[in-house]
Amino acid sequence: MQLNDQAFALCKSAIGHASAWRIVEHRLANGATVLDFGVQTPGGILAGQNLARICMSDRAKITIHPADYSLGPWALVQVTTDDPVHACMASQYAGWPVAKDKFFAMGSGPMRAKRGKEHVLKSLNISDSSERAVGVLECDRLPDESICELIASECGVDVRGVVLCVAPTRSIAGTIQVVARSVETSMHKLFELGFDLHSIVSGYGTAPLPPPAIEFVQGIGRTNDAILYGGHVTLWVHAEDDQIRELGPKVPSNASRDYGVPFAQTFKRYEYDFYKVDPGLFSPAMITIVNLKSGSSFRFGSFRPDVLSESFGELT
Amino acid sequence: MQLNDQAFALCKSAIGHASAWRIVEHRLANGATVLDFGVQTPGGILAGQNLARICMSDRAKITIHPADYSLGPWALVQVTTDDPVHACMASQYAGWPVAKDKFFAMGSGPMRAKRGKEHVLKSLNISDSSERAVGVLECDRLPDESICELIASECGVDVRGVVLCVAPTRSIAGTIQVVARSVETSMHKLFELGFDLHSIVSGYGTAPLPPPAIEFVQGIGRTNDAILYGGHVTLWVHAEDDQIRELGPKVPSNASRDYGVPFAQTFKRYEYDFYKVDPGLFSPAMITIVNLKSGSSFRFGSFRPDVLSESFGELT
Amino acid sequence: MQLNDQAFALCKSAIGHASAWRIVEHRLANGATVLDFGVQTPGGILAGQNLARICMSDRAKITIHPADYSLGPWALVQVTTDDPVHACMASQYAGWPVAKDKFFAMGSGPMRAKRGKEHVLKSLNISDSSERAVGVLECDRLPDESICELIASECGVDVRGVVLCVAPTRSIAGTIQVVARSVETSMHKLFELGFDLHSIVSGYGTAPLPPPAIEFVQGIGRTNDAILYGGHVTLWVHAEDDQIRELGPKVPSNASRDYGVPFAQTFKRYEYDFYKVDPGLFSPAMITIVNLKSGSSFRFGSFRPDVLSESFGELT
Repeated sequence: MQLNDQAFALCKSAIGHASAWRIVEHRLANGATVLDFGVQTPGGILAGQNLARICMSDRAKITIHPADYSLGPWALVQVTTDDPVHACMASQYAGWPVAKDKFFAMGSGPMRAKRGKEHVLKSLNISDSSERAVGVLECDRLPDESICELIASECGVDVRGVVLCVAPTRSIAGTIQVVARSVETSMHKLFELGFDLHSIVSGYGTAPLPPPAIEFVQGIGRTNDAILYGGHVTLWVHAEDDQIRELGPKVPSNASRDYGVPFAQTFKRYEYDFYKVDPGLFSPAMITIVNLKSGSSFRFGSFRPDVLSESFGELT
Repeated sequence: MQLNDQAFALCKSAIGHASAWRIVEHRLANGATVLDFGVQTPGGILAGQNLARICMSDRAKITIHPADYSLGPWALVQVTTDDPVHACMASQYAGWPVAKDKFFAMGSGPMRAKRGKEHVLKSLNISDSSERAVGVLECDRLPDESICELIASECGVDVRGVVLCVAPTRSIAGTIQVVARSVETSMHKLFELGFDLHSIVSGYGTAPLPPPAIEFVQGIGRTNDAILYGGHVTLWVHAEDDQIRELGPKVPSNASRDYGVPFAQTFKRYEYDFYKVDPGLFSPAMITIVNLKSGSSFRFGSFRPDVLSESFGELT
Repeated sequence: MQLNDQAFALCKSAIGHASAWRIVEHRLANGATVLDFGVQTPGGILAGQNLARICMSDRAKITIHPADYSLGPWALVQVTTDDPVHACMASQYAGWPVAKDKFFAMGSGPMRAKRGKEHVLKSLNISDSSERAVGVLECDRLPDESICELIASECGVDVRGVVLCVAPTRSIAGTIQVVARSVETSMHKLFELGFDLHSIVSGYGTAPLPPPAIEFVQGIGRTNDAILYGGHVTLWVHAEDDQIRELGPKVPSNASRDYGVPFAQTFKRYEYDFYKVDPGLFSPAMITIVNLKSGSSFRFGSFRPDVLSESFGELT
């Protein structure tokens, strides 16, 4: 099934469970659909798990677990996928800044594969022949008709085929969908390091669920820190051990010059200019690479519960 | 959907899975239904998970996880809910002592919402317009027609609309359904402390699954201790930080004068008179309150694996 | 439902999800069905979870969890069953070495119950009246028509009723299905010790998921070690405490003279002769026996993360 069709099927399920998942469906005048997972509705845990699944074109499982108490007694968001390239890179990676007039949101989900403009999509030969475009917007407000038309136009679909799922970072669902990106961040980092992502067979990742923040910088700080200092990813790959030995140490967040303090502090130090932050920072605290070709496995990085505590806040 | 209708739908599913879940359906002469989850049947883990779901009107997920080994290698019962008021207070709270002649059982489940007599239900404006009454009885024997008629009469439904799900504390299912009350105990404690439960958006809780006891006092001791000394609850709320700072320290079990020893000892010390036990004892060992309004979070209480070990028994 | 019919229903589901689970269906010329979970297909996590379920006649749940970090940040394979005799002994136990000409595979799954030749099956009075035979083969290559005819003949079914699910130990699915045997190994050990398996009500087990190995000895070494040094099983039983006290210390792997080093080393020391390895070695690191009859519980054995690390490999 095409990615957008698969995500759409889950959106229909979300609409059917709207009351239980506390999702609100908005049919816009131009026929586009906006699904609110946490802007004007409380949303919640089920909303978040399903938002993350939609964002990954339903090619991953998202479950909630207790975190190891050495990280603190948080809930943990676990993701497993047997199609990491399509789930993470073709769908989940937040590679589309959706901006028009005063509206801005980081855009993710399989609509990116329809648009096809990003370097990563071209490199991985990703396309999608669906007549729909399903996206996830991390945003404090709901998009209007004009945003949906922009999406439709960029994706080459009729606006009636556009479904946008929206949750703010400060909502429970928004926090869950970001923290479900543990595997994705490791894939993207490996992509930047020149690793062949098609050689990655399956992925498994976990990261603690931070308390949602009100303030914007703190919000992206905590969700990033959940992965940077508490995330662990296992990737099963077909590769050469030498390549893993060479690239591996560069994968986890501790390979970055900006590692070691809560992200909000780093962001402030760079005067809130994302382009000054080391892009290599965005990666899990720890990565285990299991090489199916050689039978060897490799682990890089380590957890930093101290930074997590500092980031996640007061707790007394 | 009305609470009792939602619980009833799950009862029908239980009947359909009766063999696999080892549940036995009894149709009484007066048309009431009694579902045995562990009295004359072994029941088991699936029976327990589904009994807990029925008890929460299917507004929660119940999953089994390995406990953190610092608590001991127990199975852990995890509950997540995006409707904590209805799942826990309108349904799961064991607020109805069902007594007639020599029959006695603690009654819980959404039948309480139909009856509507309890203070907590009135305070929270809970009602239910279903024509059914679905309840859970923690009890060593199956109820007969007269008990079902009592339930029907108190709930204002035809006796043919009564479904009672029964498991003893000493059964696997009975133990699971009690230990699934981690979130509920924290909600009830907050209610007693005057907190507005409608401001609680979602709940997440865990507690280790104790070995079922044969002896009555030990049985309720262990299931209580699982929550009192090994339970952790996270609540996402909309409130004032000052109120959380004030109430928070009073929420976990360690705020009680009766904290620190296995519950069975406390119960014995009070000569098995429940009314002498500090009602404030019944609460999770640890609670994390995440304030969505402020972005702050707070943690109170701590685990006591030493008391768990003492309570759960011999283990050699 | 008969065991083979129940396993067959899940095989049909696997065929329906073939693309997502990366399973490949082969219809042989003689009408038998071979399902490839990892020989000529990558398979993966979903393939593995479902292979394990098929192997247990769908009488168990298989879920993936984060392991306790004291064992290392592995994924953990969890199994829960309310029908341990049929799930584990009648189905999952790898008691049928399927050999013909140059083909060899350890055979498990409910086809064993149709064949009925093994001592353990006779002792437990296990039979199956299904017209199908569903098996799991741990093997590097796919079986051909003649193997399916051998199975059909031994099981007394038409060859068109044979379904063989195949995965090598070195595949993700193959590793998961072996590590899902934590409960089964404890049941088999108790059987050998003379314990009445029908008195076991429910089972719960966990074991860390090792990195698949390329080399045969290392592969069976790691999957065994996952259970021997990292497995934990809880069994709820109806028995006498004295019997548990007597048998219990003999159950975990540490009761064996061959305990304490990675299995591959032991195997090598015995010059790769399985019959020289102490059969008592194959058991979980730790077992908790909860006696529903007495209310007492017992724990034997302990984890050995040091041996796990040595076995699972390089990790740098």
